[in-house]
Amino acid sequence: MEVTKETFKEVLPSIYELIDQADFIAVDAEMTGLRRSDCRYNELDSLEERYIKVRDSGRDFGLIQFGLTTFRYNKEKATYYHATFCFYLHGKDGQVLAFDNSSLRFLAYNGFNFNKLYKSGLPYLSLKEEEDEKASFLKQPLEALAPSPVKVVEEGAKKFLKETEEKVNKFMSPDNNSEVLTISGSTLSGFFRKLLYNNIAAKYENILIRAVPNNSDRSVEIRKFSSQEARTAFLEGERKRKLEEKVGFTHVIRRVLERSCPLVGHNMILDILHLFHKTVRPLPDTLQQFKAEVRSTLPTIYDTKLISKDPPFCTDIPITALEKLYSSLCKNYNPPPLEVEPGAYMSHDIGEGGGGRAHDAGYDAFMTGVSFVTMVKKLDGGNWKEKCVINSKHLALYANKVNLMNSHDIPYINLVGSDVVPNRSRIFCVDCPASWTSSDVYGLFHMLKPVKLIWVSSLSLYVIPLDNLDIKACRQHLKTIIASCPPLVRVRLYGDTAKRKSQSSEDSGSVTGTETASPARIQEYKRLKSVGSDQLSQMTLESPSMEESPAIPVYPGDGGKKLKGNGSQNSGVFNVPDDW
Amino acid sequence: MEVTKETFKEVLPSIYELIDQADFIAVDAEMTGLRRSDCRYNELDSLEERYIKVRDSGRDFGLIQFGLTTFRYNKEKATYYHATFCFYLHGKDGQVLAFDNSSLRFLAYNGFNFNKLYKSGLPYLSLKEEEDEKASFLKQPLEALAPSPVKVVEEGAKKFLKETEEKVNKFMSPDNNSEVLTISGSTLSGFFRKLLYNNIAAKYENILIRAVPNNSDRSVEIRKFSSQEARTAFLEGERKRKLEEKVGFTHVIRRVLERSCPLVGHNMILDILHLFHKTVRPLPDTLQQFKAEVRSTLPTIYDTKLISKDPPFCTDIPITALEKLYSSLCKNYNPPPLEVEPGAYMSHDIGEGGGGRAHDAGYDAFMTGVSFVTMVKKLDGGNWKEKCVINSKHLALYANKVNLMNSHDIPYINLVGSDVVPNRSRIFCVDCPASWTSSDVYGLFHMLKPVKLIWVSSLSLYVIPLDNLDIKACRQHLKTIIASCPPLVRVRLYGDTAKRKSQSSEDSGSVTGTETASPARIQEYKRLKSVGSDQLSQMTLESPSMEESPAIPVYPGDGGKKLKGNGSQNSGVFNVPDDW
Repeated sequence: MEVTKETFKEVLPSIYELIDQADFIAVDAEMTGLRRSDCRYNELDSLEERYIKVRDSGRDFGLIQFGLTTFRYNKEKATYYHATFCFYLHGKDGQVLAFDNSSLRFLAYNGFNFNKLYKSGLPYLSLKEEEDEKASFLKQPLEALAPSPVKVVEEGAKKFLKETEEKVNKFMSPDNNSEVLTISGSTLSGFFRKLLYNNIAAKYENILIRAVPNNSDRSVEIRKFSSQEARTAFLEGERKRKLEEKVGFTHVIRRVLERSCPLVGHNMILDILHLFHKTVRPLPDTLQQFKAEVRSTLPTIYDTKLISKDPPFCTDIPITALEKLYSSLCKNYNPPPLEVEPGAYMSHDIGEGGGGRAHDAGYDAFMTGVSFVTMVKKLDGGNWKEKCVINSKHLALYANKVNLMNSHDIPYINLVGSDVVPNRSRIFCVDCPASWTSSDVYGLFHMLKPVKLIWVSSLSLYVIPLDNLDIKACRQHLKTIIASCPPLVRVRLYGDTAKRKSQSSEDSGSVTGTETASPARIQEYKRLKSVGSDQLSQMTLESPSMEESPAIPVYPGDGGKKLKGNGSQNSGVFNVPDDW
Repeated sequence: MEVTKETFKEVLPSIYELIDQADFIAVDAEMTGLRRSDCRYNELDSLEERYIKVRDSGRDFGLIQFGLTTFRYNKEKATYYHATFCFYLHGKDGQVLAFDNSSLRFLAYNGFNFNKLYKSGLPYLSLKEEEDEKASFLKQPLEALAPSPVKVVEEGAKKFLKETEEKVNKFMSPDNNSEVLTISGSTLSGFFRKLLYNNIAAKYENILIRAVPNNSDRSVEIRKFSSQEARTAFLEGERKRKLEEKVGFTHVIRRVLERSCPLVGHNMILDILHLFHKTVRPLPDTLQQFKAEVRSTLPTIYDTKLISKDPPFCTDIPITALEKLYSSLCKNYNPPPLEVEPGAYMSHDIGEGGGGRAHDAGYDAFMTGVSFVTMVKKLDGGNWKEKCVINSKHLALYANKVNLMNSHDIPYINLVGSDVVPNRSRIFCVDCPASWTSSDVYGLFHMLKPVKLIWVSSLSLYVIPLDNLDIKACRQHLKTIIASCPPLVRVRLYGDTAKRKSQSSEDSGSVTGTETASPARIQEYKRLKSVGSDQLSQMTLESPSMEESPAIPVYPGDGGKKLKGNGSQNSGVFNVPDDW
């Protein structure tokens, strides 16, 4: 069910009811962009570095649609009841945010209705903004300054004033039953408005002159009241109503957070960051701060992309983009019985007839939820009927871990615990002249083929041997390579000194900031990499966002002037990753 | 006629023809926003200060629609022939710009079709960007690195490779006449694409494997060629075609600039800045630099808002917002005969039937052009038929002056000459504690009533006596005021020392940077203020963008926490000025 500002108030009670009954809620967000060009992901980003990139995305871009599918398990019937809501989001009036024109084009091509968005999108406020507004309301007088009549000399204005006074006199007479007199905006110049708000307002007791709320014609209404108290009560009610209206969509999220209902998303890092920034609090500066805030705010989170990268799914399902994953799971695995919540609720059905369109936040949330129940049901095997999937013991491994895209060796961010510390000791770091291309690098590293190149800028890159080499062999090769290095080229191993500056925070982090890897964590990481490792290395041969021809890439910082092979630019139409 | 990327190529020759024949062209632009919240206009902004605010708007926000109405005068028939084009604009792929959600809502309410915009908007490049792209093209090899086959172990990939090879073998056989083989994007994982671009490409001579251009399904096409030369020629042609495509809408503007055809707009400062930044060169940092660049780049410009503020129009037409101005002019003055250009051209007609909708850039351009010819015809009197209005001697006064909104005493920016230097010697500058409100200020200045307050921040404001006072009387009052000043309040006259920091550039400008006012300039300024002065003071009693109730205003820098009267916040739905 699509929810707009016209229908929100009416639907909210039933949304509350479904949230209260839900075992878990699947979510999806659509945004006005993914990242600025200076925030391109690098496959060897440290988690802190990556957080800063996604944090900026959550801060800068707009959140324009949020999908939510509630799932409720009925054990007797062994059936999952679901209802889907798709909220069009406008935010706070006058908010200036960023958009990426390619992202919007991508959404438009996928049927996103921008006209509906801009006309009917819902407001929202972060909890912080709401508190601020409330505090500011309480400090403000109910009304602005008393009206101060303006001197009128011009004939037209004199005439307007006289005619309006006649109208208002009629309206104010005790035998006139109407409460409101409306003056059309099209007849009003700025000065005429001034006369209304000052000269007319000063002339009568217990009236209120104001712009008609939510009227694009900018009409002005005059209200009369029986007493000063009635007038004050009206103004207080209006103020409260306005704030409630401004909170809008946040009412929904607040309910979810209050209930601490588990959330399920697909490749959901950006969805979570947008949700947090827009409806909870401004995103903090560092990952560690963010993790601390998540712990005290968000419910448990599961990322279906991460589950799908593990066995048995990763062997059968090569593409984990949501739409493909969903259709593969529906085809090859056996979703449990699913039914739309009884009553006037709406959702989607599995299969052709009940399908929505991908990249509609509502349908994406639905597909995510169905993928989740289907995968966890599979993991639970024959016992699946006994409890809702959300209570499966198999989920412990995935709780609060969100998938990390475009990373060479860090599969996820652990939102509430310690993170994977990858072993990068066999990665070569190369500084080279700006004229160097991938061919030159391949030449220098010919004895190590196959290698993967990850350019950081036009002046530096990483070289990763794809065959398993032990560190001793790497050191041996390093010597040979250094011996054959042309002038101005420097090669070293990742762990060695002369680290590039942006790595320093990560390195210190891996010593002091991150907990030492416990045996359990090492085992868990092994599992997450087990069968996936082969697939992971395939996946990272190219970035998921650039499954295009080996085009001429553009590098951050080199202004597109330089030529390097094996780049990370998408030469296709849309710079939008698979799973968005 | 609406022009999108689907129709552009076809329509361009006729647009060229009309531009070449036009006597002048009326223009209008729609943008994704007007200003960031930290760029609010202040009525006493110096021109340099104001330029920086509008410059940032031109740099930050998106240009999404451009309307253009060509006007050609036929003296024999004493008729103006016109044709209107409305371009939907997308810009350069992957461009990240800002949007103000209120501005987009305003446009959506006025019928703007955002779905069409995002699906079918035209690309554009500034001339500078085009040069850069060209230079970069010439430096790049026609192709990226040679394909390097990937090791295939996984069964699914092996199968894919085998089946594809069979398909390509068939396609490559000499008796197969098709030039292109397309492989649907939906069947391709990232790794399968990699295999196509590397393993398949390496296996055949004279083929080209690439993503199908402009295909959202991300299909891949395989092309075969008779020779390596044919292949190279194809790639070179494609490169050239791509650049031409990217230039898109800029082709139109380039033609206008080459012809130096006069442009007419309504309240056009933002239109001009967007046009310049997006299709010519990045906006320079300072007004003086901008003026220098305008002189060498843009044709003569006329602003109908400025003309409409002068007699005889200002007495008859109180509201100069475009739609009102246009309808008043059509009703009360006598537009010359107007006809749509013969041929397959489209435009609008005067009156009910042929109307478009306001805030459609095409219709706004049309209304602007008609307002222009009607006003200049009026100024020309009985002789109007003798020549096109663009050659009227009455226009000399308005050439290259663009209207300045929300300014207390500077009516326009002169794009190619020296500017008005307002006399601000009778304006009081007040520094006050953050707790001060307008009431406190009115109290302090009670002997000077009526006064106008212009808040700069919560700590400083200007007080302008509305009655005519000579400087001597001002100094006298200043003494009395200072004598009754509470602690922490400082009052001085504008020209005196201890200027606020942001004024310093302006003040020095009025001494050194601006030419001394010549008698002619003084007379001209007087004329522009003559009848308009009364109206101007009315207009500036409130900012045109805040013709609302005397609401509780929010001040820049005080986070909305403080309360002051006479503010510049728009409490209505849209933060969009009249004339946008």
